[in-house]
Amino acid sequence: MEAESPAKRGVDLVKPLRCIVKLGGAAITCKNELEKIHEANLQTIASQLREAMSANPSSRKKLGMDWSKRLGADDSEVCVNVDDFISQESLGHSSFVVVHGAGSFGHFQASKSGVHKGGLTLPLVKAGFVATRVSVTSLNLEVVRALAREGLPSIGMSPFSCGWSTCERKISSANLASVIKALDSGFVPVLHGDAVIDDSLGCTILSGDVIIRHLADHLRPNYVVFLTDVLGVYDHPPSEPDAVLLREIAVSKDGSWSVVKPLPGDASEHVEITVAAHDTTGGMATKIAEAAVIAKTGIDVYIVKAATDHAVRALRGEIRGALPEDWLGTAIRFSG
Amino acid sequence: MEAESPAKRGVDLVKPLRCIVKLGGAAITCKNELEKIHEANLQTIASQLREAMSANPSSRKKLGMDWSKRLGADDSEVCVNVDDFISQESLGHSSFVVVHGAGSFGHFQASKSGVHKGGLTLPLVKAGFVATRVSVTSLNLEVVRALAREGLPSIGMSPFSCGWSTCERKISSANLASVIKALDSGFVPVLHGDAVIDDSLGCTILSGDVIIRHLADHLRPNYVVFLTDVLGVYDHPPSEPDAVLLREIAVSKDGSWSVVKPLPGDASEHVEITVAAHDTTGGMATKIAEAAVIAKTGIDVYIVKAATDHAVRALRGEIRGALPEDWLGTAIRFSG
Repeated sequence: MEAESPAKRGVDLVKPLRCIVKLGGAAITCKNELEKIHEANLQTIASQLREAMSANPSSRKKLGMDWSKRLGADDSEVCVNVDDFISQESLGHSSFVVVHGAGSFGHFQASKSGVHKGGLTLPLVKAGFVATRVSVTSLNLEVVRALAREGLPSIGMSPFSCGWSTCERKISSANLASVIKALDSGFVPVLHGDAVIDDSLGCTILSGDVIIRHLADHLRPNYVVFLTDVLGVYDHPPSEPDAVLLREIAVSKDGSWSVVKPLPGDASEHVEITVAAHDTTGGMATKIAEAAVIAKTGIDVYIVKAATDHAVRALRGEIRGALPEDWLGTAIRFSG
Repeated sequence: MEAESPAKRGVDLVKPLRCIVKLGGAAITCKNELEKIHEANLQTIASQLREAMSANPSSRKKLGMDWSKRLGADDSEVCVNVDDFISQESLGHSSFVVVHGAGSFGHFQASKSGVHKGGLTLPLVKAGFVATRVSVTSLNLEVVRALAREGLPSIGMSPFSCGWSTCERKISSANLASVIKALDSGFVPVLHGDAVIDDSLGCTILSGDVIIRHLADHLRPNYVVFLTDVLGVYDHPPSEPDAVLLREIAVSKDGSWSVVKPLPGDASEHVEITVAAHDTTGGMATKIAEAAVIAKTGIDVYIVKAATDHAVRALRGEIRGALPEDWLGTAIRFSG
């Protein structure tokens, strides 16, 4: 199924990478409220990730790995039962990498200062760079904690501080060695969209989607899952009454793509391919284009609504064969 | 072995590094209260750092770089006046690296699980590794925010996630490139003691002091300042009535050291060199030994009480020549 073998790309993981999952900013934060986490969604996503990663999740007691006091709760008790861990045979799970967006974190700081436009020597841009990173790393810490509470050995990896940088907004340096080391040691790396140094512009914003494309290209996961706040990709903004969910998109060798399900010729549905922008980081057209770049190398991409049963099935890899009729989401795959 | 020039070590910084400063865990947290930051001390330390780093601090308005909501204050307003930054000519400052200890963060998690003893394949150790990192990275974020609020362009760099690892507790891999890139771009890197992978033991704790020794060895700062919760190094635990503050320690080429002030023969004082352990990370004897390793390469080391006037003077580099009579602290220097 894959177009190229991992060996060909030169990255040897101890255990093959099963999945890279993007937690969309709109799915884990409350979009219209500054720096507000969507706690319920985040908790469900973490729990579903645990279910998808464990070989036999029901047989195991959940052993939390966040032993810190809760945010803003000064009197909260930290409770750890060491014996629970000692009786546990192994924490084995399949390999996942998590990348999250910013949602209502970072955007205010970035747009106030114009970090995405560069010019790091300007006091406003430098301050905005620091402020953006304070905001997105706060979110990263909370995502890491939510996964740790579910018993997933999560490790926050902040791209800029780990050595990721760009040149004319394209990745020029990435710290894959640290990601690989964490995976090989049995951890779940958690990266995020970040403000980074750009060798040409001074600085810019490196989006989570671009990070995923780079990681997919080098680490060759079996599949990539984008968790968003809508069912998948629509031909129109999903708020419009005649919006049609694009269920399957075929990508050819040259990266061009076409809708397979529903067929544009289907009498009952009127599908338009001019996809409008309706998410916070560049719109669905960008999302399909990014996904197509991954899919054309033979890696399935699923875009699915976070915290739903459809998401669990995608995370488990159940969508890899024929598309189940009752699965709602967008599958983007290589058609040869 | 050491006593080599910066050029010889092959690290070329755009601007020479002025100072590496250690924020001792005991100085920035409340030692006896789990995960409690000493807010007043941390704020004063940040303000003193700003004063020491700025060429002409009084002439400049403080322009905060933490534009996020405050911890636990959901309704706090984020206030940024963009015009203040635009009228600012430059944020130029001398180059500093900050490394902090853990204090009441991380120790509970590390000691419950035995992370420092290794054995990462054991479920308890792996969970403790994750829990320790959640705790110390929470502290790191708060230190970064405190510095950013004072207008210092701080960047959190978490050693494990950035690629630092050890072999038999000695640093085997360090991500100096990211630290250098951050310094060259005008940021203040903020590292911390961390749980890391140890190629021989599985995992261990990499202390802030060992990180400082490594950074000093490669980045060649003019001087290193350790901010602690006591005036400096004493011959006895400072809680004892006859404890004498060791004001100056001379280190020779072979790394051996002796007390210069007060002289052991001074009739009015009885100085003993058997230094007892009385801090949270290995005691003052370890601290002198670590400092001596740095000092024997020709870099002055000052151990001084955080948030005091003595600390500001040390941070400014005023102690580099003859020891001022009214300065209280411990200066550890190369004697040739």
